[in-house]
Amino acid sequence: MKPNKIKSLWADGKPVLNGWLSIANAFTAEILAEQDYDSLTIDLQHGVIDYQAAVGMLQAMRSSEITPLVRVPWLDPAAIMKVLDAGAYGVICPMINNRAEAVELVSYVRYPPSGTRSLGPTRANFSAGSNYAAEADDNILCFAMIETAEAFRNVEEIVSTPGLDGVYIGPADLTLGLTGKRYPVGFDREEPEMVDAIQSILAKAHKAGIRAALHCGTPSYAAKAVGWGFDLVTLPNDVRLLASAASASVAEARKRIGR
Amino acid sequence: MKPNKIKSLWADGKPVLNGWLSIANAFTAEILAEQDYDSLTIDLQHGVIDYQAAVGMLQAMRSSEITPLVRVPWLDPAAIMKVLDAGAYGVICPMINNRAEAVELVSYVRYPPSGTRSLGPTRANFSAGSNYAAEADDNILCFAMIETAEAFRNVEEIVSTPGLDGVYIGPADLTLGLTGKRYPVGFDREEPEMVDAIQSILAKAHKAGIRAALHCGTPSYAAKAVGWGFDLVTLPNDVRLLASAASASVAEARKRIGR
Amino acid sequence: MKPNKIKSLWADGKPVLNGWLSIANAFTAEILAEQDYDSLTIDLQHGVIDYQAAVGMLQAMRSSEITPLVRVPWLDPAAIMKVLDAGAYGVICPMINNRAEAVELVSYVRYPPSGTRSLGPTRANFSAGSNYAAEADDNILCFAMIETAEAFRNVEEIVSTPGLDGVYIGPADLTLGLTGKRYPVGFDREEPEMVDAIQSILAKAHKAGIRAALHCGTPSYAAKAVGWGFDLVTLPNDVRLLASAASASVAEARKRIGR
Amino acid sequence: MKPNKIKSLWADGKPVLNGWLSIANAFTAEILAEQDYDSLTIDLQHGVIDYQAAVGMLQAMRSSEITPLVRVPWLDPAAIMKVLDAGAYGVICPMINNRAEAVELVSYVRYPPSGTRSLGPTRANFSAGSNYAAEADDNILCFAMIETAEAFRNVEEIVSTPGLDGVYIGPADLTLGLTGKRYPVGFDREEPEMVDAIQSILAKAHKAGIRAALHCGTPSYAAKAVGWGFDLVTLPNDVRLLASAASASVAEARKRIGR
Amino acid sequence: MKPNKIKSLWADGKPVLNGWLSIANAFTAEILAEQDYDSLTIDLQHGVIDYQAAVGMLQAMRSSEITPLVRVPWLDPAAIMKVLDAGAYGVICPMINNRAEAVELVSYVRYPPSGTRSLGPTRANFSAGSNYAAEADDNILCFAMIETAEAFRNVEEIVSTPGLDGVYIGPADLTLGLTGKRYPVGFDREEPEMVDAIQSILAKAHKAGIRAALHCGTPSYAAKAVGWGFDLVTLPNDVRLLASAASASVAEARKRIGR
Amino acid sequence: MKPNKIKSLWADGKPVLNGWLSIANAFTAEILAEQDYDSLTIDLQHGVIDYQAAVGMLQAMRSSEITPLVRVPWLDPAAIMKVLDAGAYGVICPMINNRAEAVELVSYVRYPPSGTRSLGPTRANFSAGSNYAAEADDNILCFAMIETAEAFRNVEEIVSTPGLDGVYIGPADLTLGLTGKRYPVGFDREEPEMVDAIQSILAKAHKAGIRAALHCGTPSYAAKAVGWGFDLVTLPNDVRLLASAASASVAEARKRIGR
Repeated sequence: MKPNKIKSLWADGKPVLNGWLSIANAFTAEILAEQDYDSLTIDLQHGVIDYQAAVGMLQAMRSSEITPLVRVPWLDPAAIMKVLDAGAYGVICPMINNRAEAVELVSYVRYPPSGTRSLGPTRANFSAGSNYAAEADDNILCFAMIETAEAFRNVEEIVSTPGLDGVYIGPADLTLGLTGKRYPVGFDREEPEMVDAIQSILAKAHKAGIRAALHCGTPSYAAKAVGWGFDLVTLPNDVRLLASAASASVAEARKRIGR
Repeated sequence: MKPNKIKSLWADGKPVLNGWLSIANAFTAEILAEQDYDSLTIDLQHGVIDYQAAVGMLQAMRSSEITPLVRVPWLDPAAIMKVLDAGAYGVICPMINNRAEAVELVSYVRYPPSGTRSLGPTRANFSAGSNYAAEADDNILCFAMIETAEAFRNVEEIVSTPGLDGVYIGPADLTLGLTGKRYPVGFDREEPEMVDAIQSILAKAHKAGIRAALHCGTPSYAAKAVGWGFDLVTLPNDVRLLASAASASVAEARKRIGR
Repeated sequence: MKPNKIKSLWADGKPVLNGWLSIANAFTAEILAEQDYDSLTIDLQHGVIDYQAAVGMLQAMRSSEITPLVRVPWLDPAAIMKVLDAGAYGVICPMINNRAEAVELVSYVRYPPSGTRSLGPTRANFSAGSNYAAEADDNILCFAMIETAEAFRNVEEIVSTPGLDGVYIGPADLTLGLTGKRYPVGFDREEPEMVDAIQSILAKAHKAGIRAALHCGTPSYAAKAVGWGFDLVTLPNDVRLLASAASASVAEARKRIGR
Repeated sequence: MKPNKIKSLWADGKPVLNGWLSIANAFTAEILAEQDYDSLTIDLQHGVIDYQAAVGMLQAMRSSEITPLVRVPWLDPAAIMKVLDAGAYGVICPMINNRAEAVELVSYVRYPPSGTRSLGPTRANFSAGSNYAAEADDNILCFAMIETAEAFRNVEEIVSTPGLDGVYIGPADLTLGLTGKRYPVGFDREEPEMVDAIQSILAKAHKAGIRAALHCGTPSYAAKAVGWGFDLVTLPNDVRLLASAASASVAEARKRIGR
Repeated sequence: MKPNKIKSLWADGKPVLNGWLSIANAFTAEILAEQDYDSLTIDLQHGVIDYQAAVGMLQAMRSSEITPLVRVPWLDPAAIMKVLDAGAYGVICPMINNRAEAVELVSYVRYPPSGTRSLGPTRANFSAGSNYAAEADDNILCFAMIETAEAFRNVEEIVSTPGLDGVYIGPADLTLGLTGKRYPVGFDREEPEMVDAIQSILAKAHKAGIRAALHCGTPSYAAKAVGWGFDLVTLPNDVRLLASAASASVAEARKRIGR
Repeated sequence: MKPNKIKSLWADGKPVLNGWLSIANAFTAEILAEQDYDSLTIDLQHGVIDYQAAVGMLQAMRSSEITPLVRVPWLDPAAIMKVLDAGAYGVICPMINNRAEAVELVSYVRYPPSGTRSLGPTRANFSAGSNYAAEADDNILCFAMIETAEAFRNVEEIVSTPGLDGVYIGPADLTLGLTGKRYPVGFDREEPEMVDAIQSILAKAHKAGIRAALHCGTPSYAAKAVGWGFDLVTLPNDVRLLASAASASVAEARKRIGR
């Protein structure tokens, strides 16, 4: 089985720069896979993407050396197992609130006896290479998202779940969950209260010996998060990159021509 | 029939800022249609897009006030008439080399007795509104691309073709055609030889009373072209915008974290 | 955020005429969006439609002033949140049987602290306009379907669920649930027993201060239901309209030519 | 090879009732194939449909006994041969203006030595059954559309083209071609001038021993055309059927509820 | 309603040869439907296929006399009901571990009062023919997969579930579940321990009066399983058939040309 | 630019084993790309595949080291240029009958001044790597199919066309063209008349210094053709491989169980 590049980077003590795909298109996936990200995540939760489109995106990303992850829509065995069979090297599962959910999540990602994943890696047998069934449990990453008030209260019990590789913080939801509508929505929190919350999750994950990842809205915040010790940081997604670049392009032209 | 915004802008003496779609996806089309472009062209020639995908993109762009154009793959009646029936407000046809081809192009875009377009605007009847068959000839724009040595020699006979609304210059192909491999490929030519060529086409088009458009690679060059008198300028396409923005995002993060 | 037209109509004391889409096609959605319906529902339960097709349909409906709803396949957070992120202005959830399920449903539709909806309205940010995250809870409609014997027994506890906007009656399933196979399947019940059941749900919904909707098989029954006080009535779906119209067209021709 | 039902009907002296598909959807094709049409034509010219969608429609129609035809976008060998390989039992080719074009059309539809069709009926080998290559020339129908002033002048030379099975009249284009914008666009011409033109084409086709077909907008006009002697008449397409039925459904409801 | 061919074969005392589809393509489905299988199962669990692709495959298989089954991704009412509405004549549900899950499964497959299936067989009304709602419960097959250690312990309580038609053994998962990683993964178990396990499930199913099916990796093992008494055996899937045949084709050529 | 593996093999004096794709599916393409073929051709002529599906197949094949070719539907600049822009490393063009057509073909494949290919390798810029525009003419292969009586008469003038890399023989069409319906249709001709014809084309190609390729129906015939000197031989396509393997699988099972 082709090894998981994220694991190699971590073994070398390096942080991972993760890209994010929300557009259901294999060519945009192929374009981003040619950039210098370490990994790319297909977002089946908030991305405008379903399973079949994700398969085409995984195929288009395969020729690069990038590691493909998938954020699944929910803690659902069908969704999780299907994307793994399709060749994802890891899943990020939203809205994990407690130990029971974390245990359930891990069970869907690992084969028996470690878990309850059903055997049938139809595409992965081709894309991930020989011996997949035997080596998958050692290569597939399993991230639980921490993004609710309940999850925040239960961080210790979540991070200590056997078989969990890391937690992934969704700062927009977490802020909404912890502070209601007190602050504007968005990533890249600067409020001390939220920075503390984020750093405390990071600390607890590391104390439990697992990894911590943060969803970021700008490269500069991502770099700051790496400075805090985050093991994986996500850079702005395809939708934001495209919309911002297009907007800036038109605005510059309008300004220059005075229209 | 909903009027063609490009025509209104021109009537007001304003240049048109055109965006360019090369990704086969209705959501990317929808995103770009929300930016501040005046028109958006779906590129069926060099874009990675076919007819059926283009229909979805036209549908996704409809709610904006943007004018949808299509660059067809070639001087082909089927391709031209199908995208018009699907609701395009104009076609840009590549590789028009002489008067005969320009005449043929116009004939495919106009209904008899002006041309030979077959009647059956199946989607346009819905998207462009009532009275389409009667008003289409007055609203649909027809551009011939000038991008070969032969076309350059024949500019006068092309620009004077009755029913042609404008010429559209493809600077990369034109440079290749006029100068071979002497210069690097690309848009935004700075060589005096090529700037002269481009300006001479512009002058001949205006002299013949039709419009001139230029495909540009940067907003600043587009603004310069407007300064020269171009009536429509095309800004960087979705692929370039996305690839550049993604590349810049990763590069900034790498630089900041020193990896 | 663009306001919900259904809410405006209700505020004006007007009933809503809802169309129903069961064919996975953006052009049929666009065609129906041009007719005079107030809202159109994409049926992901019994319609032959999945999420990705629904996105294209939402895009094609956007340019009309019609309000787009989605019937989700089941009480499933992933399905519900994904269609809302894709721009639906409301969900109709089948087979809500009791208060616990109704509470769960509402929680998936509302952001914290009202519910547990995860933040990330990727397409809605474009299609519904600015300030979506802050205004969505006030604009998104949440309907629980009443269509089983259990639900019928629990109507009071369902209709009083905080945050629920209305109940939606599925008369075919409700008849099956209440009377078994005693009556033929179908909408537009005329049996006094079923009319009573339907009217009693309507009365309880109104008493609880929420809206009531009825799925109808003919315009005349829909009009009758409006007469009873229903706030939203659904007219025949695209499949029935097309099949009936085609059948009638052939039959008329056969009759006239005697073949 | 499964025989062509149109040929059997004609052999029995019966006229053919043809349906028309302009929506790119296999389920709408399946629905119409269940109605009582004798044949169904997928319109790749003015329909919002491309090749790949047409394949799915042909598959969905296969289980019915209906004969599938395709109107190709233009006189183009690639388009014609691909739809035949995909299992169409006949092609209707638009805008045939003279004998040369009719000869070209026939050549694309027939295998050598009768024509130049390339051998490779990849799907037809499965869908049309054994011995396809040997029997196709006897079963595939080839219609030339007569719909321009030039074609009208050349009817005799067109209808006498060896290997042509019939002419198919497009009354909207023909009216535009013969009379310019003197009359409103549409099918079902009532002007004596146009009725004469249509009947004269019919007469010339029959005199040459080939069939004549007419595109109609209503069952009653279709029946009238059968009365005139037309061998195949086309009834209203899926778009018209659906749009009219939906419009009528809403209108009836609005009228009844007084809104 | 068109009868279920599997039921007829069983009534005649004949075993059923089932094919297996893991490629999301209507043409491969059509090709396999032309071979001599009795039934074909679309695998939505480990197959690289989602709902919308499955609909196209069901349409493409319809013209054959083959019985279409679907393996759903999980015990999920939405997935199960949607494929039945789309025309599947039976579902195979993975990972049924106990009586409660088996009861839940049956309830999703049967209409009230036998179960909780919601009424709305949108495509089945066309594809399965008239009177679907009344006859479906007698024609639709419901299989529970036995493939975990827990299921193996609970076989008796599962096979005696009212309304369950049969059990379907997944030998790869079952081996993993019963023996961990002691044996290599795969179908066609030869270990006495596993053969005993498989045969004991068969015996218990038959004792309870229901059917037993086995997923096989070769025709010879399938024949052996029929010899043991299995009522339905699954032959190698499309992916294996294609990959093996391609591999053998290249290998033979390489060997013959010595390269 | 990533080099063309076919050219390297030829430079090493080795024949090329080419696979053939007629199913519109990226996963089947990915599966075949994992087998041991040297190149894989996507057939847009007789394959049930269009442009957009071909793009997904090219993406899925990219990670393998296989060289992707495309057989275009016809001598059509739009089709040829679009598949090259999408990343094909060569085109096989059907039905080239004379020098003029061969010259036209070459012109569509080469950039000026060698030809008339328009510049805009949107996907190839990513998939084929840097410097595409400058190096494409040296890496892209151009094959003319010889498969008609006219082409056979004109072989010398075709093979000597400047810029043509090779001829590709379609034996089924060639047999039909040269001998009418005297022989059964198919590849792998054994009639001395046809073997002579095939070998004479091979000899003339080699004499002119270009390559010769043969479409074969079995590995053994392909090996024989290599023995004759063919530079590239095509092995059975995906449809035949799958259909034959499925048929054999069912037949073996039926035989063993006596049903």
